[in-house]
This record gives sequence, C-alpha cells and structure tokens, in this order.
Amino acid sequence: MALVVQKYGGSSLESAERIRRVAERIVESRKQGNDVVVVCSAMGDTTDELLDLAAQVNPVPPAREMDMLLTAGERISNSLVAMAIASFGASARSFTGSQAGVITTERHGNARILEVTPGRVREALDEGHICLVAGFQGVNRETKDVTTLGRGGSDTTAVALAAALDADVCEIYSDVDGVYTADPRIVPDAQKLETISFEEMLEQAAVGAKILQLRCVEYARAFNVPLRVRSSYSNEPGTLVNGSVEDIPVEEAVLTGVAHDASEAKVTVLGIPDEPGHAAKMFRAIADAEINIDMVLQNVSKLADNRTDITFTCPRADGPRAMELLKRMQAEGEWQDVTYDDHIGKVSLIGAGMKSHPGVTATFCEALSEAGINIELISTSEIRISVLVRDTDLEESVRVLHRAFELGGEEEAKVYAGTGR
Amino acid sequence: MALVVQKYGGSSLESAERIRRVAERIVESRKQGNDVVVVCSAMGDTTDELLDLAAQVNPVPPAREMDMLLTAGERISNSLVAMAIASFGASARSFTGSQAGVITTERHGNARILEVTPGRVREALDEGHICLVAGFQGVNRETKDVTTLGRGGSDTTAVALAAALDADVCEIYSDVDGVYTADPRIVPDAQKLETISFEEMLEQAAVGAKILQLRCVEYARAFNVPLRVRSSYSNEPGTLVNGSVEDIPVEEAVLTGVAHDASEAKVTVLGIPDEPGHAAKMFRAIADAEINIDMVLQNVSKLADNRTDITFTCPRADGPRAMELLKRMQAEGEWQDVTYDDHIGKVSLIGAGMKSHPGVTATFCEALSEAGINIELISTSEIRISVLVRDTDLEESVRVLHRAFELGGEEEAKVYAGTGR
Repeated sequence: MALVVQKYGGSSLESAERIRRVAERIVESRKQGNDVVVVCSAMGDTTDELLDLAAQVNPVPPAREMDMLLTAGERISNSLVAMAIASFGASARSFTGSQAGVITTERHGNARILEVTPGRVREALDEGHICLVAGFQGVNRETKDVTTLGRGGSDTTAVALAAALDADVCEIYSDVDGVYTADPRIVPDAQKLETISFEEMLEQAAVGAKILQLRCVEYARAFNVPLRVRSSYSNEPGTLVNGSVEDIPVEEAVLTGVAHDASEAKVTVLGIPDEPGHAAKMFRAIADAEINIDMVLQNVSKLADNRTDITFTCPRADGPRAMELLKRMQAEGEWQDVTYDDHIGKVSLIGAGMKSHPGVTATFCEALSEAGINIELISTSEIRISVLVRDTDLEESVRVLHRAFELGGEEEAKVYAGTGR
Repeated sequence: MALVVQKYGGSSLESAERIRRVAERIVESRKQGNDVVVVCSAMGDTTDELLDLAAQVNPVPPAREMDMLLTAGERISNSLVAMAIASFGASARSFTGSQAGVITTERHGNARILEVTPGRVREALDEGHICLVAGFQGVNRETKDVTTLGRGGSDTTAVALAAALDADVCEIYSDVDGVYTADPRIVPDAQKLETISFEEMLEQAAVGAKILQLRCVEYARAFNVPLRVRSSYSNEPGTLVNGSVEDIPVEEAVLTGVAHDASEAKVTVLGIPDEPGHAAKMFRAIADAEINIDMVLQNVSKLADNRTDITFTCPRADGPRAMELLKRMQAEGEWQDVTYDDHIGKVSLIGAGMKSHPGVTATFCEALSEAGINIELISTSEIRISVLVRDTDLEESVRVLHRAFELGGEEEAKVYAGTGR
C-alpha cells in the first residue's frame, strides 16, 4: 500500500463542479488502496479577492493580519473538498497547516518551513481517512501565530508533507499535463518528458519554466521525494521528477529542454575598479533594497585601466529601483557608468547530456547565428547554457534551439547523435 | 481603566467602508483609555454564501467539515477589522476562538461553551493591543477540532469573553439602537428603555424579541456581565441590560414592554389519560425528533372521564413534523385527537412591576376584550403574561396593550398609576 500526496492548485478548484471532479479523482486513488493526503490551494480567485478587500481597509496592512486573512482561503477549499469526498462515500478530514504540524519561521507572508510533525495526519490516515491539508500556511512555534509561505507555498507544503510522511510520490496537479521540452505554445512539436532529474528540473525552474517553483523542487531533491507533474483534467501519467543527474548513465544522458524568460531586465555597471570590495558593496546595496538578482557576469578586467564591468539581471519590475540606487552610488563613487536594458529575453538549454558531450555549446551558438540572432551575453552551469538575446528574438530562439537539438516530434533527442560539445 | 468588550454583527461589517467605520469606533474607545476586546461575526452574507457552496458540493455535508468551512468567515472579518484599526494608528491582533481559549462541547454546528481561558488575549491587552476575537466558534479539548456555536453564537462568545476577562461591560452592536417597549415598526410611539433587568430581558428574548439571543442573556445573568445594546450607526448609549429583577425596589418596578411572535404553531393533544407517563412519553417523542417546544399548557382533567388536554407551541417549520409524529402515536395509543393551528400569534407583556401589583392580568384581559380580540390561551410567569390570539389580531393586540399600560410617548409607564393587578 502506497502513501500518495496530491496537490491541487486554485484553477483546479475554481468551482463547486471542479471540486467534485477533484474529489472523484482523490477517492479513486484511495480505492486503489493508497493512503491519500491532499494539499489544496485556495479556490480560483479567492486569494486575489481577499487581497483586494484588505487593500480597501488598509493600503499597508500589518503582515500578521494578512496571514490570518489569506489562510481563510485554503480553509474554505480544503473543507469543501473534504465534503465532496464524503458525498462519494469515502471519509475525509481537513486540517489547517498548523493542525498538520507545519512549523515555520516567523516571517509573515514569506515564511520558510522549519519542520513538519504530521502526527495528527498520520493518526487520521491510520483510522482510514483521506486527509486534506491546507497549503501555503503553517505556524510559528514561538509566537504561535499563523504564517503563509509565499509563492509556490502550496507546492512546498505538499512536498514537505510527503517527505515527513515518507510518501511514495507527490503528485502536483494543475492545468498543465507535464514538463515539456519547450513551451508548447511557442514550439508546436515540443514533447512531453516522461521523466526528468531533480537538477534538470531545478535548472528549468530557475530559468523561467513556470511549472514548479524552485523551492519546491529543491525540497523534493533534498528529501528525495519523487514528484509527478500531472493535469487535473486528464488521466495521463504526466512527468516524473526524480533521481539525481549524477545517476544518469553517460550514454543515456540527454538534453531535456529549452526554457525561456521574458520577465527580466539587464543592468550593467561599467568601469568598476578591479579591487576587493567594490562588487561586494554594490551587491550588498542591491540586496538591502530586496531586489532579486538572477544572472551575474563579470569578465576579466581590461589591462589598460584595471577596471571591469559587472552585469546582472533582475525582474523588470525592480529595474527602475535598481537603477535609481546604482545611479546614486555612481555619483558618489568611482564607476564610469550604469546602463539599463529591459528589452532582453533569456533562453536556456538544459540537460544532463551537456556534461559529458563536447560540442553542445558550439551547436548552440551556430544555430542562433544561422538564424541571424545575436547573443548578447552567455552564462552557463554544468547542465545549462543561458544566453540573453533581444526580446523580439526570444521565441524564435526557442524554436531554433529546439530544432537544432532535435528535441521535437517523434524521436527523443540524443545528444550524441551527430552533435558534440 | 475599564475593559470593554464589543460585538459587531454581520450587517455592521458588510463592506470595507462599514468595516472602517467600525474600526474608528473601536479606536475611539481605546483612546478613552479602555482595554478593548472586539468580537466580530462574519461579514454580511458570507455565512450564507459558504453554506450555499457547501450545498453544491454535498447536500448533506459532514458536520466537522461544515465547522471548518464556516469559521473561515469570522477569520476574514476579524483580520480585516484588525487591519482597519492599524490604518487609524492603533495596534490590533486578531485571534480565532480556539486561540482565544474558547473551549466547547463536541457538538459540531451547535456547540456549547464549557469555559473560556483567555490567556493570550490578556497578554495582548497588556502589551497594549486591541484584541479581535472571532465569534461563533471555539475548539473541543478532546478532539482538538474547531466547533461553531449555533444561533446567537457571536453574542454568546462576546459575553463569555467578557465574563472570563471580568469586563466592565459587553456592548452588542447591530442596526437596532436599543431595547424598545414594543417593536417600533408596529407601535410608532414605542419608547427606548434606558435600562432593563436580566430577567426581563430573558423574558423578552424568550417570547419573541429579536434583539438578543436567550443563551447570551442567560450567560450574562449567570456571570453578572452588564450588556449594552447599541447601534453601530450612531453614538446613542442604547439600553443597559443589568441587574436582577429581585433588586428593583417595589415602587420603581415597572412594565418594560410588549413582545410579539408570529412564528409559532399550536398543537393540542386531546383526551390524554390523566395518569403518570402519558405526557412524558409524548414529550420524549417530540424531543427525540428535535422539535423545540415553547409554551406548554395542561389544565386540570375532566372529572367525567379523567382525561386532559395538552397544548404546546413550536416553530411553524416544525409543525408538520410534529403532527406526523403525534398522529402516528394517536393511532397506536389512547388519545382522542390531535389538532393543529398555525394561524396563531403570541403577545406578551413583560415587567418586574407585575410581581408586586395586583390588577395587571385584569387590565390585560379587559384591554384585549374591549378591542374585540379573543384570548385563546393564557400562560404566565412571575414577570410575564403571554396569550395566544389569532395571527390577524396580533399587531393590534400589541398596540392595544402598549396603550393600556401607558408604555408609549413621553411618560415612563408606572404600573401603580391607576392600574392594579
């Protein structure tokens, strides 16, 4: 008998009818003899509606109260799903994050899970109940206040519960039926992956793929919880996220996909003295302003004046703030210039295969060059190549690379088939 | 420095704007130097909307899950009021019933408060915060499940908290600005009472007055918590409910009002053998069917056949069920007949004054008789006379009695002025 954790997002739960369909699916899993634990996000637009109400009573609401307010959403959806399950003849109990033993840091609105002590859930499972656990929330041990977990919080709740309960799998349901080699809306012949390693999924999440949040994949990898990405609208098995990229035999290592991200801006600080301390000072200022940095590049300094340039990317929404800050620092300091560009797009090729196969970088650059697309910046990891191009070239870049590495259509792309790194 | 508990009902909280007005009122009380604890019901129609959603997923939802669902409503309103308070510069903390230490029986949907251990609220008050506590809910110690308290639950929560915190007063806010000598919509010159004793308020609540729930007044009387019935739309002081009818000096004892109730039906079981056991069997059957009985009358048996008749009233919605049950028992047993009448109205005169002044009953009956209104049934307590009349005569009965006992207009009615019992 397996223990299965399922997670359903807001759009899978947006009406009474959808809730009943989800309940049927849950009962089906139980009927197959599994212990079933389900984590539900708030229904449809509930969280947005609550945020809107809050803004009407106070434009800058206290964070503790915001968490008390928002957690009502998951309370509603989980109890409704439990009721729907009961109408199909099975028994279910819903629990808040606190009742399920999700212990977090104190940081309201963006708390981190410290541990999960799911005693009450385990007891209820042993009594034969299906357990619903409110996602996106927990409790802080010191203050005893309810907390919410920030973006991707429900996915993280599900994975954390799965780890604590030693589940066999954690199924993440949304309106997407798996992880694809590229966004199917841009690349019509993108293929659904049967399986992908944790590290490759991490890279995907980090460079723009919207399917799973980075923190959720990190948690799954750390605790070795297999994830299955499935659609709540079909019975397709979806994509299994499991295993380490280290364990993939060289000859089976492939490229898993092309991800893209159009949400970033590029900031370059030109002419920083190449001495200790300058870069640190700049990054500390950016961090204190709570601006999240993605890519960072510093190339070797120019011999002539021992200065170097540092480029980083960040969300476009934070761009103006970053520029304001850096321009001020430039006026006070020794840099030559600060430039800004929010018409960039990032395209990334991901896969265990590139570790062991020479020629991938060359093929990558050649493919874009042949398409007349200029690469403005390159940054890589062991299993990823990311480049910045003009945002207007982004979608074509995705298609070009997807084709160049034969990721589409019937055949599974094999890196060693005619390419090299 | 006083400790004030305030309770706001759903209609006082039905929009963001109303919530901000309520928050202003709360902050005003705090500014006067009071410790302030506020109990909020769910906003406007929230509870009904949640019930509707529940019915869509399961027509017979499990009670435990219904309580998990409905308690979301109070969570939302209390956190929003806390946010609004913060926008006016004061600090507030919201708590669930469970967090505030409201311990209840296990009975989901209709739990009874066993005790209140408001340690966390007391701590927060000592730190200078205004405390919001979700009404209508608590927690059961054994199961650790959340429970709801049934009708009037938020009023009861407020009174129970006031008792546990030794509050100076518990203010109940609604869209009604006090307790009147009769329903002002029926009796235009009805007067607002400045004060009323616990027992008189109990009788008012018991016989149809909709202002306060019976259980809430009982709790206040048992724990000696002064109540103030006020409007959330004005600054009028409202009506103070306090003191025992025993403590009212004879010469000050007055009549406090005329209440009416058009929601009941009358059931008469004719020809019950006047022996031990028959009435008990009938009432046990009615109780097991969860039919609430209000008035009960049994007069002396007829000498001829040693049989008697028993009449009781119950909510009209339960009438058909009661009749079905009793007709079955009649067929199996020894009664002569069972009759039903749902065109009755109940009118009641209430006041400490009738204890010590002869002639009130006579005046009562004469007044109705002169108006051509037939009294079909009489039942009294020490401080109340209730009669059943035709429902079509009900409103006129209220006016007739209100006039007969000079309860209207400028002068306060004094029983000893020209009337006797």
